[in-house]
Amino acid sequence: MIYITRRERFSAAHRMFREDWTDDENQRVFGKCSNPNWHGHDYVLHVTVKGEISGEIGYFMNINTLKEIIKEKIIDKVDHKNLNLEVSFMRGRIATSENLAVSIWNELKPAIEKEGAVLHCVKIGETENNIIEYYG
Amino acid sequence: MIYITRRERFSAAHRMFREDWTDDENQRVFGKCSNPNWHGHDYVLHVTVKGEISGEIGYFMNINTLKEIIKEKIIDKVDHKNLNLEVSFMRGRIATSENLAVSIWNELKPAIEKEGAVLHCVKIGETENNIIEYYG
Amino acid sequence: MIYITRRERFSAAHRMFREDWTDDENQRVFGKCSNPNWHGHDYVLHVTVKGEISGEIGYFMNINTLKEIIKEKIIDKVDHKNLNLEVSFMRGRIATSENLAVSIWNELKPAIEKEGAVLHCVKIGETENNIIEYYG
Amino acid sequence: MIYITRRERFSAAHRMFREDWTDDENQRVFGKCSNPNWHGHDYVLHVTVKGEISGEIGYFMNINTLKEIIKEKIIDKVDHKNLNLEVSFMRGRIATSENLAVSIWNELKPAIEKEGAVLHCVKIGETENNIIEYYG
Amino acid sequence: MIYITRRERFSAAHRMFREDWTDDENQRVFGKCSNPNWHGHDYVLHVTVKGEISGEIGYFMNINTLKEIIKEKIIDKVDHKNLNLEVSFMRGRIATSENLAVSIWNELKPAIEKEGAVLHCVKIGETENNIIEYYG
Amino acid sequence: MIYITRRERFSAAHRMFREDWTDDENQRVFGKCSNPNWHGHDYVLHVTVKGEISGEIGYFMNINTLKEIIKEKIIDKVDHKNLNLEVSFMRGRIATSENLAVSIWNELKPAIEKEGAVLHCVKIGETENNIIEYYG
Repeated sequence: MIYITRRERFSAAHRMFREDWTDDENQRVFGKCSNPNWHGHDYVLHVTVKGEISGEIGYFMNINTLKEIIKEKIIDKVDHKNLNLEVSFMRGRIATSENLAVSIWNELKPAIEKEGAVLHCVKIGETENNIIEYYG
Repeated sequence: MIYITRRERFSAAHRMFREDWTDDENQRVFGKCSNPNWHGHDYVLHVTVKGEISGEIGYFMNINTLKEIIKEKIIDKVDHKNLNLEVSFMRGRIATSENLAVSIWNELKPAIEKEGAVLHCVKIGETENNIIEYYG
Repeated sequence: MIYITRRERFSAAHRMFREDWTDDENQRVFGKCSNPNWHGHDYVLHVTVKGEISGEIGYFMNINTLKEIIKEKIIDKVDHKNLNLEVSFMRGRIATSENLAVSIWNELKPAIEKEGAVLHCVKIGETENNIIEYYG
Repeated sequence: MIYITRRERFSAAHRMFREDWTDDENQRVFGKCSNPNWHGHDYVLHVTVKGEISGEIGYFMNINTLKEIIKEKIIDKVDHKNLNLEVSFMRGRIATSENLAVSIWNELKPAIEKEGAVLHCVKIGETENNIIEYYG
Repeated sequence: MIYITRRERFSAAHRMFREDWTDDENQRVFGKCSNPNWHGHDYVLHVTVKGEISGEIGYFMNINTLKEIIKEKIIDKVDHKNLNLEVSFMRGRIATSENLAVSIWNELKPAIEKEGAVLHCVKIGETENNIIEYYG
Repeated sequence: MIYITRRERFSAAHRMFREDWTDDENQRVFGKCSNPNWHGHDYVLHVTVKGEISGEIGYFMNINTLKEIIKEKIIDKVDHKNLNLEVSFMRGRIATSENLAVSIWNELKPAIEKEGAVLHCVKIGETENNIIEYYG
C-alpha cells in the first residue's frame, strides 16, 4: 500500500453562521468568524489517496490525474468564490472547515474510486495554525 | 543602521472593482478577483523599520513595540474584516494589495516615527506566489 | 470523526543530562545537547484532537478553545523558560523532546476531555529536521 | 510508543520510463516526466521510526543515529546522482517516487532494527505539491 | 513606486562543467555538481517588477500578466528539461544558477518593458539553502 | 553584480540583560527575554555576498566555500551554545539579535574579502516572526 498526496490551494470568502439564529446568537457562538460582511482565507488542501503500486508503471495513480480530479471537482468550484453563497456542495451546511472537509471528501470519493484508488484523507489548512483532517 | 522586521497575518475578504464601472467592465479588467460575492486571503504582512542600535540596550526599538503598533493600527482593523466595506483607511481606494500596502504604510509611519525609528518597507503576501512591497 | 490541529510555538532553553551522571558521562551519551551552559530552540507544537461534528454548529470544538487550553496549560509555562529548571511538569524527567511530548499530553488530556473531545496527537518540532510525535 | 522523524534532503536527476517501451509509449504514459534528457528534483525525505522511551535516557533512539543511518544508507548514494543510472537499490525499477519510497524503506529497515527501533514511515516530497508515503 | 513579485517553480536537470575541460578538471572545480550523469533541482523562481500604481485600477501591472510572461518565456522552456542540453537561452553558458539568473533576466526584460513595467530582480532558489539574486 | 545567499541554522540559549542593572531593571526593559534561567531559539542565518560572475566558471564564489566560512567562523562557535557565556565575539555586548548580526558581520567580513567577494547582508531570524538585517 502506498499513499500519494496532492497539495492544492484556493482563496475564498466565508462566514460562520446559522440563518435561523439572530446576528447576536451567531456572534456569541462563532465570534469574529461570523462577521456579516464576510472574511476569507487562502485555504491549503491536501488530498491523500492510497493503492498498490503497479509493477508495470511504478505507481498506482498518476498524481497528475489526482490533480485534475481535484481541479475539476473542487478548485474550479471554490477558488475566488464565496463558500456560503456560491458552492453547491456546501449548500445548507455551516461553512466551517470541518464541514468543508467532509463535503470535499464526498465530492472526490466517486471520481477517485473510478480510477481504482482509495480516498484516504482530506486535509484543510485554514490558516498556518488551524488544520482540519477527515478520514471518512 | 539595522533593520528589524515583524511578520503578522490577517484573514480578510475583498473584491477588486470600481463602483463607477459596470459588473462587465469590472469582470473584464479584474477577472475572477472582481467576484461580486467576494473572496478572501490569509494575508501575510511584513513590516520593516530601521534605526541605529543603542549601546545601552542593544537594539533601537523593541520588536514587541513594533508588534503592538501593527496590531493596534492594522491587524485589529483588518482581521476577519471586509477590506472594501469595513476598513476606514481603504475607503475610496480599489482594494488591491498594492493600495493596501500604501495605506498600511501611511497608517504606520507616524506611530513608528514617534518611537524614533524609520519605516523602511511594507510587504504583503496575498498568496504564497503573489507578493507586494512598498518602500514609501 | 474529524481531526483538528492547532499549531503553537514557544522558545525555551534546555539541556539533556542526568544529575546522577558526571559531566563526562552526560557528554558521552547526549553530546553537545548536554552543554552545561544550556542551549535552546523555537519549539513548534501541534496538538490534534478528534470528535464528531455537531450538526448544529458545524464543528465539535471551537479551535479557539483548543488554542486557549494550550496557552494556559503549556505555552504560558514553557515560553521563554528553562525546561529543566522552571517547568513543573518536566520535574524529574530528562528534558528530551520525547519526554516533553508525553508530559504535554498528560497536561492537556483532562482539559480536552472536559470539552468533550479526544486528544489524538502531540507533535513537537525541535528543529525543522527533528520531529517527535506521541499518540498516548 | 513514541515516534521520531528525521528530515533530510537530496538533489537528484531522474526520468520515468521503461526500457522495453518505445520513446512514444513512454511519452504517452509518463508525459514530460519521461524526457530522455532527464529532469530533477530537490527531494525532501522524512523517515519516521518508533519505539518506547527509555527511562534512563529519555528517548529510545538518538535522532543523530537516525540521521547517520539515513546519510550512510541513502543520502550518500542518491545526492547529486542520477536515480536511474547510479543508484544500485533502484536498479531494475522504474524511477518513480513510489518505487523510491519502497526501496528506501528496504534499505533502512535492517539498520534501524539493529538499533532496536521500528521503521514506521518513509515519506518523499518530490515537489512541494507531490508527496509519497510508504508504511511497509 | 511599488514592487510586485511572482513566485514560480520548475524542476530541471543540470550539470556544472566546461566542455573544454577534462572530467577531472571539472570534478576538481565543480565537485559533485559536475556529475556527468546529471543531477537536478526543484528551482524556485521569484521575479520582481516595479512601477507606479495607476489610480484607475489600483496597480501598475496585473500579476496574472506577469505570471503568463514568466510561463511563456521561462517555465515552458525549462520545466522538466535539461538546462545544459535543451534550453536555448543557456546555450554556451555554464549551467550555474548565477548564469541562469542573468539569462532569465535577459529573456524577461523586453516582455516586461512592453507592459510598461521595470524588471527589478530575478531570484533563484536552487535549494532551500542556496539562493541567487540578480538586479541587472 | 550577482548576489548569493547561504542559509544556515543554529540552536542557542541567550538572555537579554545588562550586568550593571538589577534583575528588576532588566525585567522592566527586556521583559521575559531577560529570564535569568535563559531561554533559546533555533536561529536562522542568511548570509549574502556579492561579486561579478567569472566567465570561466559561471560564478564568483563557490557557495560551498561560503558555507564552510560560515560554519568555521560562526556555526561551530554558536550552535548548541550559550550566546552570553560562551561566544567570544559576543563578549561585552548585550545578546540581542541586533548585536549578534553586527558581530557576525564583523567575524565574516575578512574571510569573505579574502575570497574576493563583498559581504552584503547578514540576516537573522530569531523566530519566524522576528527578523533582523544588517548591511554594514
